[in-house]
Formats: sequence, structure tokens, C-alpha cells
Amino acid sequence: MSKDNLTALLYKPKDLKLVQTPIPEISEDEVLLRMDCVGICGSDVHYWQTGQCGHFVLKEPMIMGHEASGVVAKIGSKVRNLKVGDRVAIEPGVPCRYCEFCKTGRYHLCPDIVFCATPPVHGNLVRYYKHAADFCYKLPDHVSMEEGALLEPLSVGVHACRRGKVTAGDHVLVLGAGPIGLMILLTAKAMGASKVLITDVLQSRLDFAKKMGADSTLLVKPDSNEAELVKKVHELLGNHPDVSLDACGVSATTRLSLLATKSGGTVVIVGMGASELTLPLAAAVAREVDIKGIFRYVNEYPIALSMLANGQVNVKPLVSHHFDIEQTLEAYEIARRGTGIKVMIHVQPRDTNNPNKF
Amino acid sequence: MSKDNLTALLYKPKDLKLVQTPIPEISEDEVLLRMDCVGICGSDVHYWQTGQCGHFVLKEPMIMGHEASGVVAKIGSKVRNLKVGDRVAIEPGVPCRYCEFCKTGRYHLCPDIVFCATPPVHGNLVRYYKHAADFCYKLPDHVSMEEGALLEPLSVGVHACRRGKVTAGDHVLVLGAGPIGLMILLTAKAMGASKVLITDVLQSRLDFAKKMGADSTLLVKPDSNEAELVKKVHELLGNHPDVSLDACGVSATTRLSLLATKSGGTVVIVGMGASELTLPLAAAVAREVDIKGIFRYVNEYPIALSMLANGQVNVKPLVSHHFDIEQTLEAYEIARRGTGIKVMIHVQPRDTNNPNKF
Amino acid sequence: MSKDNLTALLYKPKDLKLVQTPIPEISEDEVLLRMDCVGICGSDVHYWQTGQCGHFVLKEPMIMGHEASGVVAKIGSKVRNLKVGDRVAIEPGVPCRYCEFCKTGRYHLCPDIVFCATPPVHGNLVRYYKHAADFCYKLPDHVSMEEGALLEPLSVGVHACRRGKVTAGDHVLVLGAGPIGLMILLTAKAMGASKVLITDVLQSRLDFAKKMGADSTLLVKPDSNEAELVKKVHELLGNHPDVSLDACGVSATTRLSLLATKSGGTVVIVGMGASELTLPLAAAVAREVDIKGIFRYVNEYPIALSMLANGQVNVKPLVSHHFDIEQTLEAYEIARRGTGIKVMIHVQPRDTNNPNKF
Amino acid sequence: MSKDNLTALLYKPKDLKLVQTPIPEISEDEVLLRMDCVGICGSDVHYWQTGQCGHFVLKEPMIMGHEASGVVAKIGSKVRNLKVGDRVAIEPGVPCRYCEFCKTGRYHLCPDIVFCATPPVHGNLVRYYKHAADFCYKLPDHVSMEEGALLEPLSVGVHACRRGKVTAGDHVLVLGAGPIGLMILLTAKAMGASKVLITDVLQSRLDFAKKMGADSTLLVKPDSNEAELVKKVHELLGNHPDVSLDACGVSATTRLSLLATKSGGTVVIVGMGASELTLPLAAAVAREVDIKGIFRYVNEYPIALSMLANGQVNVKPLVSHHFDIEQTLEAYEIARRGTGIKVMIHVQPRDTNNPNKF
Repeated sequence: MSKDNLTALLYKPKDLKLVQTPIPEISEDEVLLRMDCVGICGSDVHYWQTGQCGHFVLKEPMIMGHEASGVVAKIGSKVRNLKVGDRVAIEPGVPCRYCEFCKTGRYHLCPDIVFCATPPVHGNLVRYYKHAADFCYKLPDHVSMEEGALLEPLSVGVHACRRGKVTAGDHVLVLGAGPIGLMILLTAKAMGASKVLITDVLQSRLDFAKKMGADSTLLVKPDSNEAELVKKVHELLGNHPDVSLDACGVSATTRLSLLATKSGGTVVIVGMGASELTLPLAAAVAREVDIKGIFRYVNEYPIALSMLANGQVNVKPLVSHHFDIEQTLEAYEIARRGTGIKVMIHVQPRDTNNPNKF
Repeated sequence: MSKDNLTALLYKPKDLKLVQTPIPEISEDEVLLRMDCVGICGSDVHYWQTGQCGHFVLKEPMIMGHEASGVVAKIGSKVRNLKVGDRVAIEPGVPCRYCEFCKTGRYHLCPDIVFCATPPVHGNLVRYYKHAADFCYKLPDHVSMEEGALLEPLSVGVHACRRGKVTAGDHVLVLGAGPIGLMILLTAKAMGASKVLITDVLQSRLDFAKKMGADSTLLVKPDSNEAELVKKVHELLGNHPDVSLDACGVSATTRLSLLATKSGGTVVIVGMGASELTLPLAAAVAREVDIKGIFRYVNEYPIALSMLANGQVNVKPLVSHHFDIEQTLEAYEIARRGTGIKVMIHVQPRDTNNPNKF
Repeated sequence: MSKDNLTALLYKPKDLKLVQTPIPEISEDEVLLRMDCVGICGSDVHYWQTGQCGHFVLKEPMIMGHEASGVVAKIGSKVRNLKVGDRVAIEPGVPCRYCEFCKTGRYHLCPDIVFCATPPVHGNLVRYYKHAADFCYKLPDHVSMEEGALLEPLSVGVHACRRGKVTAGDHVLVLGAGPIGLMILLTAKAMGASKVLITDVLQSRLDFAKKMGADSTLLVKPDSNEAELVKKVHELLGNHPDVSLDACGVSATTRLSLLATKSGGTVVIVGMGASELTLPLAAAVAREVDIKGIFRYVNEYPIALSMLANGQVNVKPLVSHHFDIEQTLEAYEIARRGTGIKVMIHVQPRDTNNPNKF
Repeated sequence: MSKDNLTALLYKPKDLKLVQTPIPEISEDEVLLRMDCVGICGSDVHYWQTGQCGHFVLKEPMIMGHEASGVVAKIGSKVRNLKVGDRVAIEPGVPCRYCEFCKTGRYHLCPDIVFCATPPVHGNLVRYYKHAADFCYKLPDHVSMEEGALLEPLSVGVHACRRGKVTAGDHVLVLGAGPIGLMILLTAKAMGASKVLITDVLQSRLDFAKKMGADSTLLVKPDSNEAELVKKVHELLGNHPDVSLDACGVSATTRLSLLATKSGGTVVIVGMGASELTLPLAAAVAREVDIKGIFRYVNEYPIALSMLANGQVNVKPLVSHHFDIEQTLEAYEIARRGTGIKVMIHVQPRDTNNPNKF
């Protein structure tokens, strides 16, 4: 094994560097992975620019990266589900396995979860990375390493739709046509939603969403009248939405969700914006519109992988840019500008581990 | 049958009068009721004082009253569940029976529901009142007419606890120790809640709640520090609440609910205050605390009645004042002052229809 | 309006005749329908051959038909959802609207439900038929009358999948590739099932199921070894089924469902066979495999219609035979032989009411 | 620490001996317990008499005991929830923590679960026993060691009632008034059930159940007529049962459950009898009566403990016999005869660790 372990290390806000770090040792239930693809997420850009995201704050240098896939290079003595050479997607959070949340099937809420690139935990934008074997999912040959990395945001979409109990016959409103909004759109359609209407402030994003399968789109402007937007949502969907999924979490989108959703329906808050929001809460809850948030995902990697492997969703068009790990700073700069959709960093040369080229 | 049909009619805000109205004719699926007890609810006082409540506005004179019980005086040709002389509690809302909400078991959300004393629908603070027979529930002999009237607010408590899925082992936080908060407390205990902590701004209400079974109480002051209140809730309950039920719906209580509830738990908004609230929404939804509102009740009268009839809850102590219908204005004035808990108006002399005196 | 009201009337077992009956009068919440398409269901053949089906027994002459569509000819005074000329699918059961089941969203369990062609209630294989307006669903122009009639068996499939909570990621086993098994297959795929394996005793049915989207098929023979079948199910699905849906309800299929389903999964019994079955119950329930039956459908017509209208399912290939109402006996004879899949009877000349030909 | 480690070891069927075994070493997440109380369960008697229970077969000598409590004698290096001297109840099954079942909150279905006194895993009827610290629950001072041991069968009752979603307003039928039937009765009442009817073949058990809170009882005889029993159940409950819990699992009780339960209700199979049962399945599933089994319990120890600690259930009267560990054979003989209810073995002198005497 090479001793090169090139690592994208964030020293402090705006100080991201490529350096060498030691290749980690694994324990009995872990695998060592030779990393392949690592996508850039909005939170990565936040940490890079400001040193924080939500209530997580960078205090010591941290390796970036959590939307990732790799190839098994070594396995721990008790690992049974994987073997050397397996191509895997990496679910980036490993919970404690002992607490009430872990035991009740909500391990994502485990207060001691160790989650890649969330301070103070290191991520996997690095040549060699170790991970709990049971949080690595073997990819079938026809699923590319890029898609493996995209399982991370897709799992967010699956979790959101499962929380909203999206199913056949549902009219669905998705607020925001960024990467997460698109993943929600794809998942909702795959789960049998009757109609999906997606909103955004950029027409270009809506055009892309339309290509990805949105039944209708709505351009929202800063000065759009709230009551008229509600009316337009109902007209475009041909119904009040059974489920609204807010992929932005800003005041305007959360308000629209609350006001437009059908009585007895559900609003799922996926994106999180300001810590305080002024909301017409009674207008929703007095109609028994339930409001649910999501935190990452739980038990959704296998579902997301099956959807992908069966061709129920096609996430490939979401990758707008490719960079080698040596170009990490350039990649982050592109992600920061937000001109593309998903920026993918290749730790190994493109298609090294893809039986079928991406 | 007497022709006296004394009626408490609200002409306009602050103009409530006792007048005579015609005794109604019934249709085939209705019963005519000789009214007995009618409680006063907060919404009644609102209509009386301001002519509105929520988005409902008084436009024409309206008969007051919706927390009520009576005795069957006449039955329609198709009525099979009741006979003349039956003592009944009256579920005050009758839905359309045809719409999607009616068919999916959420008839309380029916947009065409006809609900007593909600403009423009008349209530039942009157000698003779007609109602759909299937929304009248026969009281066993040992349940008093007063308790029959109290099934209305008790059903709100049952609906709130069912929405919050309160069950054995749950730590429960109830915000507000008014009549509805107390009904929630009683129901939560009857459903097996492990511990119930109740909060209020008045110590006298907390003292009463303690007598009614609260495991602990917390006096909240206008200048209480939010973070400290959260900490106190956790200390007093010995746990983070699995379910918080906000019987006030003002900014302070809703905020405390959102912040104090356990990750993955549920906040049920029961009281509704201002139309716009500034809330730390992300602090709740990012921990997957679900927020659910309630609107009245649905299919809960039979449950509330069984709880009462079996002695699982004792609502009698909540009746703080008794008045005859002729004293309606005096009764409303007492209710407005809020010094008591539940003010009961007797359309017939007290205990006329109670085999066991109240 | 013509006075011709040709009617397919079953006098007694094996005595089905075409006769004239009076055109019915409608009440305020009903519509009169000029019937178009009426499919033949297995239960129809049972009544025709034996005079009974399950515990329902023919005691007086009964009009046949319950899988049907028609065109609105007249509307009652209170009907708002339809107008004359509307093309509609007919949900054949109309519940009492007053009982506990009706109020809790399970109107299909209403003991007083009036269901077409279930003794002693008449069906709709007749020129003119009246029905509750709210149980008629307007078809969009691009949905044919034949598809409208097929909403009935499709709703059974939707109800079965909803009872089994089929969703993305699920491995699904369907037992029986007759019309109902196929409807379940189509629905499960539309709801995002990962893989569907279907079994039958006829290879021809499996070949058809494969064309309709089954991921894999399993031919079961009378002498198949049970343990080996379980093993094959697991191999072919690549997993233990999360949900098994038994469209036959005979001993062999129910047993296989119970044994093959994943621990913690669900078996849905859709077909009902013998009244007594000898079953390895403990082998299922000790692994917390839940067993749920279905009775018809509830609130599923709108979902089935949206799936059809959106192109999420294509039921057209299921229609194997077409007959005019005058050929009813010939049609029933074909249905009895079971050589085709779905036999459709046309009360009006084919495509009379289809903007796009079927 | 003493080196005495007296152990109740089952060598082969009917060959149970008290011998010395080595005191075990603990790992970092375990505790060593000085055992106090160990109850005898029906399965213990089965292993003793026949060497098997269900599909588990004794192949090598096995230490008995799984309904137990003890005192912490030593803690592993990573244990944070307990300290030496803590009095604890022991949840006897420790799952793998890695599989799908463990991650989805159903760890009781983990195929690799290690469960006390289930071959080939040793139990805890021994002086010193080691266990995963997170499956030990600290008892408050006022809860006795005997009650700690009884948390095991109580958790079965809680799991059964949670699977049946027993709640306020429910009419509940419990079949069998043995220890598990009684635990179900106590739990159902604590969860707010409206009425509980319990059946048995012995009047003495019914008399005891009545004392423990059953609202009504029904003596079933071998020659009881099935249809009449169903009628009696409905009469005695004053309703069709919403939930029936079969604590026997023999043909007669399962049949009665299926036939008597309300349409749309739930049957929970708790006891498991013969591997093959002949059942009127269609009579239940065609009315959408759901059939659910249970396997042990999951996440229910904390709930059962809270119910006990709060005085919501009183399990003390269930202990009918007390023996010292040296009298183990005598204790098993009493348990085999079935004359009492629960036989408790004391590994330490009675009340050694009870602040309040039992």
C-alpha cells in the first residue's frame, strides 16, 4: 500500500489545504477504504467559509468530505459483510449503538454519533479512510462510484419523503430546486406521487427540475404575494398538496408550506435557515397540518441504493462538475459560486473503479 | 310539550339576551332535545366580547352554547340508537358525510361541518334544540348531565393526547393549567403517562392541577429565562418530555414546548394564540420533534365517555360555578373574569335528570 | 330518454337472463347513469354458478355487475360534484354514513353498506343505474370507459398494497397472477417496490405477469416442496420479502406467505379460499410477521384513478375479451372458463364515450 | 469477592444440578452482577423437562434463569450508566448491534441475539453473572429485587399491549389468566383500556384475575360451544373487543380471538402452542382483523419499570412461592406442577438488597 495519504484539511475558515496525514489503523469491525469519489455539500462550503454550520463550530483542523464512495483496502477481523476490493458507498454517521435512540431505530438522533466532517470529526476527502464496516454498502457493478457518493444526498431525499409518508395518489409540493430539492423530487416520483410541483427563485433551476421529472414548476420572486402564491400552488397542482417538503427552510418557503398544505396534510422541513422564524403557525396547526423536520437520514442508504440500482431514479445528471483531489480548492470555489448543481471530487482518476464508465 | 323556548341569543358583541325562539322541527335522522346543562367555553366569551374567534366572525344573531347535554324529547323516523327519555351528551359538530375528510375518518376537518355556536350556526343554550341523532351519546345512569356537558372539553383533551400518542412510559409536559390543560392532564394520566409536569402563570391553578393528579408543577413568570425553564422542565420531569401539549398557544409556551421536548418527540399545539409567532423552529425540527395541532376532536366522544363512566377520570371538581339559564348574563360575566374553572348553566333545575345528585 | 332498460338479471344459480326493468328514480344526492362498461369478476361467476360467494347467498333475483363505468344522465338536486354528460367510474359500495366504521374512515367495514351485485343488492349491468353521486369519480378525457371499469379491481390492488404499506426499497412477493395479483403487481411497482416476485400454477400467467413488469416469476406445482419454495423465493428476490400479498388465499399460498416473509414483515391476505385453513401460524407470528386481510377497498378509487390518469399503471392489456350486453351469457361463459384475464361487457357500443379509442 | 459461584446447570432433560462454575471476566461495556432474584418461567420448565422449547434445543449443558435482578459488583472501563452497588433488573437478550433489525429498532428480532437460558446461551441462575451494562436497568430504592425480576414477564405484557396499540376506550379480551395473561391485564388497564375481559379454563385463576383488576371473567370448558363463547364475550364486554390478546396460543383460544374481535380490530398472539393450527382465518381477515404475534419484547424494560415504579401496576401478588437457590430443584418441581403463579428463587437471602422489605 502506498504511503501517500493526501488529505483535504480545513485549518480554519477559508484555510483549506492539501496535506499528508497518517493512514489510519482499523479495529475489528472496521474497514480501510481507498477513497474514490467525494461530493461537495452546502455544509462543506459553510465550514470552509465561516467555520460553522448550525450549532457545529470548527475548533481544530478538520478533514473535509462526507458524500463519498471508496474501495475496500483492508478489513477488520470481525467483518463479514465486505471483502477487499468491494466498491462501497459510505454512510457517514456512525452512532454509539448503546443509547435509547440507537435501540429504537432512530440512530441518527444518537447524541454521540460520529459524523464525517462535522466538527470535531474528520471527513473522508483523503486517500485512505477507515469506517465502520456495517455503514458501508457494497455497490453492484452497474452503479458507478459517483452514484455511490450521491447516495448521501439521495438518502436525505428518501428520509424526507419517508417522514412525509409520500405515496401513490399524493400531490406533492417541493420548495427549492437545488440538489436536495431535486433528490426529493426524484424520490417522490419513485414512491408514486401523483403530481410534484417544485418552486425556486431561479428559472434555470426550474428548467432543470422539469427535465428531471417535475410535473410543474413555479418561479417565486422576492416580492411575490403570499396569498397569490398559495392560490397558484393549488392551481398548478390541481389540488392542495398532501405533503410539502421545504428544501430551503427560509421564511418565505416555510410560510408557503404552512399555508398551502391541505388540511390534515404534512409539511416536512428539510432545509434549515435562520434560527428564529416568524410563522403563521395557527393557520397550519389549526387545520391539523403536521410539521416534521428531518435530521440527515436513518436506515435509508439501502433504500436509496435499491432505487438507484433498479433505475427508479437517475441521479447522474446532477453531477455538473468533476475535479481531481489535487484541484480541491478550485472545486470548492465552484461549489461556493453555486453555478452548477453537484461538484464531484475524484480521489482516484475518473472511472478507475467503474466497470461501466460514468 | 311546553311552548317556552327560552334562548340565549347573542345579537352582537356584548349584546347577549334571553329571548323566545321557535321550537325546531326535526328530520328523519335527528332528535329533539330538552336541554339540561351547558358549560361556558373560552370561545363563547370571545364571541360575546368581540364578536369573533379565530377567523370566525359573528354577522347575524347567534344562539350561544356548545358544551352541552340534554334529554331526548322526540326522535326522527329513522333514528335507532336513541329513544325518548334518553339522557345524552351532544357532540356539537355535524359534518357533511360526503367529502374526502368525512370518508377518511377526519370529519372534524370537513369544510362544511355545522358546529354549534360557531357563526353562522346556532348553539344549544336554549330549552329545545335539535341535533343529528348519531352525534348524541346516551349517558349511563351514574354519569351526571354536568359530566355529559364536560365531555366536550374532555374530548379536546383526549384528541390532543391521541394526536400526541401519549402512552405508558411517557414523560409529558402540559403547558397551561386552565380547563383544557386540566383535561389533557387527566387524559394523559388515564392513558398511562409516567409523569406529567404542568406549567402555568398562576400558582392557584398549579395547586389545583396538583390536586387533580399532576406529578409536578412549574410556575412560569413573564420574565422567566427560557434556557433555565427548559432545564427546570428536564429536572422536574426527570427526563426530556416525550410529548409536550401546549394548551395556551402563546409565544412563550410554544417556544418552551419546542425547546424542551425530547429529540424525536412530539409537540401538540392545542391552544391557538396570535396568528403570527416568532419561533426557534429549527431547534425543534432539526431534532425531529414533530409539531402537530389539533382542531376540536374526532371520534373521541365515545372514548371520553368510557373514561368518565369507568371512573378513569374525574372531571366533577372542574365545575366551579352553577347558574340557571335565567342567570346567563351573570354566568358569562363570571366566566369572563376567569376566577373559576368551569361555569355551568342549567337549563333545567339542577339534578332534574341526574339519578345520582351531582 | 329511451325506455329501454335491458338488464342482466340472475334469477337463480345458472339462470341469468336479459330482461327489461324499470328505470330507477333518483334522490337528491344521487345521479342516474347511462351505463357503459361492466367487467366480470370472479365473484360474479360464483353467484351465477352457485348462487353464493363467501357468506353472501342469493335469495331473490339480482341484477349482476359491479366493475363499471357510465355517463351521467340526470343529477339529484343536491349534487355538486357532477353534471350531466360526465363520464364516471362507479365505486360500487355505498355505506350508511352514520356508524362507527363510517366515521373512523373504514366505511368499507360498515355493516349496512349497500354493494352492487352482492345479495340482496342489485348491480349495474343494466342500461340505466342510479348511484350516490359522491361514489362516482369523473374520468379525464384521456381515460377510457374500460379503464374506468377496471378501477374496481385496481382499487383492490391499491388497498392491498396500502394495507401492506408497500414503499420504496421493499421486496415484494405476490402469490397468484390472476387479475387481482396483476393489479397488486402494478400497484406495488408504482409505489416504488424494489423487486416484485410473482408466483402462479400456470406458466402462461407468469409470462403475462413478466410482460406487465414482474421482476421475477416462480412456477408452483401441486407437489412443490414447501421448504424449497421458501428458499427459491429468497433466492429469486435476493432477499426475504418485506411484504407478501396472497391473491389466492388457498392453503398453499397462505402457508408460503407465512413461511417466506421476512421477520417483522407483513402478509396481506387478499384472496379468500376455504373457511378453515391449517397453518404454521407460530412460524410467522413468533417472528412478528403481521397478517392482515383486506375487504374490498376504502378511499382508494381516487388513488387508483390518479395512478391510471398519470400513466403510472397501464391496465389496458388486462382486457382480454369484449362483448356487448346482448352477449352477456357468452361473456359469462368465457369468464367461467378462465382462459382470458378480464372480460368486459359493453352496455353501449364500444368507444361511444371514449374521446380516444380504447 | 467470594469464589463461591453456585450455579443451576441443566445437563440434559430432567438433569438439573447445582454446581460450581468460574466467575466470568467482563469486557469494557459489561458489568459483573451479584445475582439476587431469579423467577421461573414456563420455558425454563420446558427445557428442564424436555430439553427444548419451540425450535430451540438443548445440546450442551446450560445455566438456567432469565427473569432476574442483581447488584452491580464490578463495571467495565467504558460503563457510564451504572456504578458498583446499583440494584438492577436484567433484560436478558443482548443483540448484535450491527444488523438491520438492530438498526431499525427491532433488536429483539436480531438473528444473533444472545438470550439468557436459550440454548446454547447460559442464563443467570448463578451467584455471579456478567451482562451488557446497557441492558441493565437501575431500580429505584422503593422497587424490590423481586419486582426487578418480574420486569421480564411484565415487559412481555407491555410489548403485547404496545403491539395491539391498546389505549383509552378500548375493550380488551385476554385469553388465559396465567402469569403472562395477568401481566397483559395489568398493562392494558394501566394503558387506559375501558374494559378487560379475561378467560381461562380454571376458575381459581379467574378469581385471582378478578382481584388483579379484570372487569369480567369467562370460564371456558373443553366442550364450550364456539359460537356461544363469541356471544358471551360480546355480552360480557358490552362490545366486540377492539384488541384480543391470546396468552395461550392453543387452537381454542386463537380461534376465539379471531372470531370475537371487532371488524378492523387486532389479535395479538402472545403464547405459542402447536406448530400447526386449523383456523377460521377468512372469518377474521375478511373483516380486516389484523393478526400480530410477539417475540419477547423490545425497548419495553424502561416502560415496564416506570409503570412499576409509579405504582401504575402492582405485580407483587403474582409471587406465590419463594425458594433459596439451594432449593432450586424443589422450586422447579413446584413450578412444574403449576399450582402457584410465579416461583421466585433467591440467590441471596431474601430482602438482602431491598431497602423496603418485599
